[in-house]
Amino acid sequence: MVTIAVDMMGGDNAPDVVIDGVKQAVNEFKDIHIILFGDEHRYNFKHERVTFRHCTERITMEDEPVRAIKKKKDSSMVRMADAVRSGEADACISAGNTGALMSAGLFIVGRIKGISRPALVVTLPSVSGKGFVFLDVGANADTKPEHLLQYAQLGNIYAQKIRNIKQPDVALLNIGTEPKKGNALTREAYNLMNQQNDFKFYGNIEAKELMEDEADVIVTDGYTGNMILKNLEGSSKSVGKIIKQSLLKSVKNKLAALVLKKDISNIGKQLDYTEYGGSVLLGLNGIVVKAHGSSNAKAIFSAIRQAKVASEQEIVKTMKETVGA
Amino acid sequence: MVTIAVDMMGGDNAPDVVIDGVKQAVNEFKDIHIILFGDEHRYNFKHERVTFRHCTERITMEDEPVRAIKKKKDSSMVRMADAVRSGEADACISAGNTGALMSAGLFIVGRIKGISRPALVVTLPSVSGKGFVFLDVGANADTKPEHLLQYAQLGNIYAQKIRNIKQPDVALLNIGTEPKKGNALTREAYNLMNQQNDFKFYGNIEAKELMEDEADVIVTDGYTGNMILKNLEGSSKSVGKIIKQSLLKSVKNKLAALVLKKDISNIGKQLDYTEYGGSVLLGLNGIVVKAHGSSNAKAIFSAIRQAKVASEQEIVKTMKETVGA
Repeated sequence: MVTIAVDMMGGDNAPDVVIDGVKQAVNEFKDIHIILFGDEHRYNFKHERVTFRHCTERITMEDEPVRAIKKKKDSSMVRMADAVRSGEADACISAGNTGALMSAGLFIVGRIKGISRPALVVTLPSVSGKGFVFLDVGANADTKPEHLLQYAQLGNIYAQKIRNIKQPDVALLNIGTEPKKGNALTREAYNLMNQQNDFKFYGNIEAKELMEDEADVIVTDGYTGNMILKNLEGSSKSVGKIIKQSLLKSVKNKLAALVLKKDISNIGKQLDYTEYGGSVLLGLNGIVVKAHGSSNAKAIFSAIRQAKVASEQEIVKTMKETVGA
Repeated sequence: MVTIAVDMMGGDNAPDVVIDGVKQAVNEFKDIHIILFGDEHRYNFKHERVTFRHCTERITMEDEPVRAIKKKKDSSMVRMADAVRSGEADACISAGNTGALMSAGLFIVGRIKGISRPALVVTLPSVSGKGFVFLDVGANADTKPEHLLQYAQLGNIYAQKIRNIKQPDVALLNIGTEPKKGNALTREAYNLMNQQNDFKFYGNIEAKELMEDEADVIVTDGYTGNMILKNLEGSSKSVGKIIKQSLLKSVKNKLAALVLKKDISNIGKQLDYTEYGGSVLLGLNGIVVKAHGSSNAKAIFSAIRQAKVASEQEIVKTMKETVGA
C-alpha cells in the first residue's frame, strides 16, 4: 500500500478538481491510501481509503514562497509536506504555488544528504510521441557545473525507474554540439559528465533538437530550463493565434479547418506537456509532485499515478544510494 | 552614396544567390555602390556600381573562427571587413560562418571605445506582425550585468533608427516578471536598467510573452538568446512535422490541407525570422550584417537594404556618441 498526501486547496480549480482526481485514483488503484488536506467545508465525499485532515490556512498564488511556508503552519501544503517528512506518507502532490511547494520540499521534506540542490523535472513531448525527461526547469536559477552533474544522475535514475528506459542517453543542453561550445557553466559541466561512468553521456544537444528524440534525458540549469519551458508554452500559443487568424479569414478556410478540427485538437494534446503528468522535485528525502496550476481532474489523477509509481520504484532510495553521500 | 562590401563566397548557396541579391539591390537602389569580394572564376556580371575584387581564399563553415580570421588574410570575409575598417566601405555583409564573422567584426572592424562587448541583434516575428528587436543572440556566452545594460542601450538605438519607433519599450528577458526574479545576472541587470534614463525600461518579460507584442526591444545574454532562437526555430520545425503526420493521415484531411496550403505557407513565412532581414553585430566601429546561411537572393537583397538603412541612419555615430566612452 502506498500512502499519498494531497493538497486539496492547491491550483486554479481547487478543491473540486482535486477531489475528483482523488476519487478517480482511489477507484482505479486498490493499493493506494490518500490523506487529503484542506478545508472541511469544501470536502464532500467519503471513501475507506481516503483520510481527511482539516486545515485552517491556505497558501495562495500571491504568497511569497519561503515566508508562506514558514508562517502558514496549518496550511494544506505545509501539512501535506509534514506528512512526508514524518514518514506517514510516501509522497505528496500539490497544484498550488510552485515556489512555495519547492520551499516546502526543501525546508520540510529536506534534501538527500550529499545532494546540493534539488531539481524540478518534467517530461516533454517529442516528435515520435515518446517524450523526454527535462531538468532543471526552475528549482535553482544560479547553478554550478557540479549541480548539473547531479541533475544528470538524478534524471538518469528518473528515466530508468519512471520511464522504464534501461540505459538512457543523457545529454547536456548547450548552444553548440562540440565539446568546447557554450558558456563557462556548460563547458565545465561537459567535462564533468564526460569523465564519469554513472550514466551514458550523449554529449551536447542544441535547443533546436529538443523534440527530435535525440536523447532520453536533457539537462540544463534552472534559469535556462524555465526559459525554454515558458518559451515552448508561449510560442505554441502565439503560433496558435497566428494560425487561427489565418484559418478563419475565408469561408473556404473555415470549412477546411472544420474538417481538421479534431486532429488539430489532438495535436494540441500531443504538444501539451501537462498530459505527461506533473513535474517532480528530485533530490529530496521524499517524493514531491507538482501538478500544473490549471490541472483538471485527469491531470490530478495522472499526478497521483506518477507519485504511486515513483514510490513503488523507490526512486528516493536509489537516489540516496547512488547520488547521495 | 552608400558603399557596401559584400562577401560573395559566404553561405550555403554562394556565390550564385549572393550575386543575384547584389543585382537586385543595385537595380532597386540607385544610390548604393557595392564592392564584391570573391573568386573571379565564379563572378559573371558587370555593373557600373559594382566593383569586383578577387580573393584567393575562402572561409568555410568548418573553419575555427578566430584562427580563420587570423590566417586567411586573403579570404573574401577578411577583405570585406578590411574595407570597412579602412573606411572604404560603410557596411559589410556575409552569409558565411557566423563565428568567423563575429571575429572579423571584433578583430578587424573593432569595437566602439567604451562598449565592452558587441551584441548580435535580430528582429523576430510577433503575433501582430510588427515584430520585435531581440539581442544578444550569441555574440557573448558569458555576460555581466553591465553588458546587458549596454545591449539595452544599443537595442534602443537600433529600434529607433532602423525600425522607426520613437520611444521603444525595452524589456529584460527573465524567468518571472517581478523585479527580484531571475538569476544573479538578471536581478542585477534589472537594477541597472531601472536606475537609468537613457531608454524607457519596461521591466522583466517572460519567454512565454516573447511574441505577444509586449515590448519593442527584448534584451538577454548571448547564451540564453541563442538558446531561445534555436528553440523557436527547432520547435517550429518539430511542430510542423507533427502537424504534417496528422494532416496526411486521411484522404479527407489531405483535401482540407490542400485548401489551406497557401495560407499555411504564408504562416510559415510570417514566422520565419530570416524574412525580417539579417542579424546585425552592434557595438562595432562599422556596420556588420550577418545574412542567414541558407539565404536566397531575396534575403541577400534584404540584408543589403538593411545595411543601407543602417548607414544612412548613422547608427554607429549615434552609438559612439550616446553609449561609447
